[in-house]
Amino acid sequence: MTRITAIRALDIRFPTSRSLDGSDAMNLAPDYSAAYCIIETDGGHAGHGLTFTIGRGNELCVAAITALAPLIEHIPVEDLLSDMGATWRRLTGDSQLRWVGPDKGVIHLATAALVNALWDLKGKVEGKPVWRVLTDMTPAETVALVDWRYLSDALDPGRARERLEENLPTRAARIAEMRATGYPAYTTSAGWLGYSDEKMRDLCRAAIAQGWNHFKMKVGGNLEDDIRRARIIREEIGPNRRLMMDANQVWGVAQAIDHMKPLAAFDPWFIEEPTSPDDILGHAAIARGVAPIKVATGEHCQNAVMFKQFLQADALQILQLDSARLGGVNEIVGVFLLADHFGVPVCPHAGGVGLCEYVQHLSIFDYVCVSASLTDRVLEYVDHLHDHFETPVRMRNGHYLPPEEPGYSITMKPDSIAAHLWPDGAAWKG
Amino acid sequence: MTRITAIRALDIRFPTSRSLDGSDAMNLAPDYSAAYCIIETDGGHAGHGLTFTIGRGNELCVAAITALAPLIEHIPVEDLLSDMGATWRRLTGDSQLRWVGPDKGVIHLATAALVNALWDLKGKVEGKPVWRVLTDMTPAETVALVDWRYLSDALDPGRARERLEENLPTRAARIAEMRATGYPAYTTSAGWLGYSDEKMRDLCRAAIAQGWNHFKMKVGGNLEDDIRRARIIREEIGPNRRLMMDANQVWGVAQAIDHMKPLAAFDPWFIEEPTSPDDILGHAAIARGVAPIKVATGEHCQNAVMFKQFLQADALQILQLDSARLGGVNEIVGVFLLADHFGVPVCPHAGGVGLCEYVQHLSIFDYVCVSASLTDRVLEYVDHLHDHFETPVRMRNGHYLPPEEPGYSITMKPDSIAAHLWPDGAAWKG
Repeated sequence: MTRITAIRALDIRFPTSRSLDGSDAMNLAPDYSAAYCIIETDGGHAGHGLTFTIGRGNELCVAAITALAPLIEHIPVEDLLSDMGATWRRLTGDSQLRWVGPDKGVIHLATAALVNALWDLKGKVEGKPVWRVLTDMTPAETVALVDWRYLSDALDPGRARERLEENLPTRAARIAEMRATGYPAYTTSAGWLGYSDEKMRDLCRAAIAQGWNHFKMKVGGNLEDDIRRARIIREEIGPNRRLMMDANQVWGVAQAIDHMKPLAAFDPWFIEEPTSPDDILGHAAIARGVAPIKVATGEHCQNAVMFKQFLQADALQILQLDSARLGGVNEIVGVFLLADHFGVPVCPHAGGVGLCEYVQHLSIFDYVCVSASLTDRVLEYVDHLHDHFETPVRMRNGHYLPPEEPGYSITMKPDSIAAHLWPDGAAWKG
Repeated sequence: MTRITAIRALDIRFPTSRSLDGSDAMNLAPDYSAAYCIIETDGGHAGHGLTFTIGRGNELCVAAITALAPLIEHIPVEDLLSDMGATWRRLTGDSQLRWVGPDKGVIHLATAALVNALWDLKGKVEGKPVWRVLTDMTPAETVALVDWRYLSDALDPGRARERLEENLPTRAARIAEMRATGYPAYTTSAGWLGYSDEKMRDLCRAAIAQGWNHFKMKVGGNLEDDIRRARIIREEIGPNRRLMMDANQVWGVAQAIDHMKPLAAFDPWFIEEPTSPDDILGHAAIARGVAPIKVATGEHCQNAVMFKQFLQADALQILQLDSARLGGVNEIVGVFLLADHFGVPVCPHAGGVGLCEYVQHLSIFDYVCVSASLTDRVLEYVDHLHDHFETPVRMRNGHYLPPEEPGYSITMKPDSIAAHLWPDGAAWKG
């Protein structure tokens, strides 16, 4: 029997606001941060997990990890890992802690860090990367990961199982394909709002040279600026590469439709986060108003109950779940199954700190077990902060190559952790 | 010029789980708690505010108050209080803190404590109860309190102002009526899930003797138990008093409809929180499935964007906003205006710690300035913990009498604060 000996919660922050990396219309000066969790055991493995924030407020997520830890720390590791569905309900079902959510905001971000740390531990114990743990599960085991209470009106768990069974015979072929060519990606590094026109042009040319075919730009500032920047990027990438636009929630419903009219001239594939992440019916109205441009959203979508409704209302055409805002792998598996049921491609949000490391596992699972399709699926990639991880993502020809090391690829280097502890790490001195 | 000299955040908890007061199907053993905020100034007044939780996690809201405080503590009090709309946007608009919401969960609960403390301070500075501050505002001033960015697709601010202007000539008559007879209330004290059948009968009889005409029971446990308890309460209250049922989110969508079929025999006025508070479309399906029984929800509704959609989707027929879960008075004013526009009565959630003290101000404002109607409007009342406040609610014949003391009625007695500080107060020793 393996015991948890400690659950540590660390406040790690990177001073990214100094260079305006990651700036957009809503998030002008983010300091990319992680509420980082280490589940130490007496069994030779430690589970690492994080949730991503952009600076202030990270300490709240760290405190929430500490608040959640007593729900699991007395339970044998084997019991926690052998029924991850029950473990998820244990972490999200505390009646008192539920009040300050439920299943949203700080407490759910912290749940993600802990749940993902348990999945990292499970991968390490089983000697497999997490995507492999997931693709080795039977359909019944996969379905049992998900809390269906508030989801089964949209998708019957029995139907979800049938879908997984349909794809079972061809899993091995897709795993081989992933290992050969990887999962297709796109880059957000070219079009941040804080960059000059010249820097955007240079970054576009460099990205094209590296083989990228999808380009995302930030919009939602002054409309004339948005139009000028869209023209520049479309000039640089030509007519055949895909341009995506991201408004980061700054518009109201009518405003989103109005602003997209002149921007439609630059043939965007989708408009991302056009309005409040909570406004399902507003996104549905925008989707009708900007068609055939698609609506993409999800990085701020708080839980599977919200995604269920976005799908029911045809309010998004590209689903961008976040690996650390949803409550970890279990809830994400539910969202993949729902999206597939509604025929909507999932293109997870990434970037930040460690999100690229996470999403590669998730999208490979989606392709191998759930969607069995790469059509309209690209995985976000941002070329920042990877060198702080023990096993960073490996990119080739604009594709993520499947990680092969055990765990969830999120273990940070001890030196990086020490240097970026907030507020006393070396990166924050002076 | 008045300066803020300190913003204190206190963790106050009452050991209510020892008596099962407040138990329901989701919240089995709550310790009613307040993340309590004191805005101290050099001007002779202090603003008090709180957000309500049920125990664990209260410390997260306390920490979030501390995280938000730097956004306002350097600004002259006169500037903060003279443009409360701008002050609200300042408190909710920090780009980094927004990430751990936005506008939901721990960070928004803390926003409520701070915003409400500022309203308390405003009332004390002006020498008026908060309801009177609100009813003395011009329609334009009222409309300017609200952040319309994500709401104006459902209600144009100009139309909201017209509605307030329509009711302006008759405000004084409704104020006189409130002072004469008070705002009608109902009691939740009789039907908590942890109580025995005999205790329920005794409480029903006592409540009838006190003049109550609305009775709420908790459902969502075993269906046979729910039916037995409903029969007992209906027997006690007779056919003409109103029975309400509250499931506290335990059901899925189909299950809610199924369970309400046998319970319909006891003629409930509404079913409250039948499923996830996030499931707008699920509530709409339940409302269609249980009609003519109404659906009531809102105590866990995170913000005005969600309420907007509940109204747009006809997903609730009774709107139960929470005075400390929404981001304080400003956002609540917006929800009152939206509900009126859609013709839905607002019956705020109360009970807990201090929520009755808050909601009396809000519903009197609603009646005087917005709805101008008492039809299907009753304000929740729970007879717990009032003696810890300096100016507790005053009830007469099942009505709330308008508070006349300056402020928001939420200032707790120093002895009560000291005794219930967690974990070192006298109430928590031993």
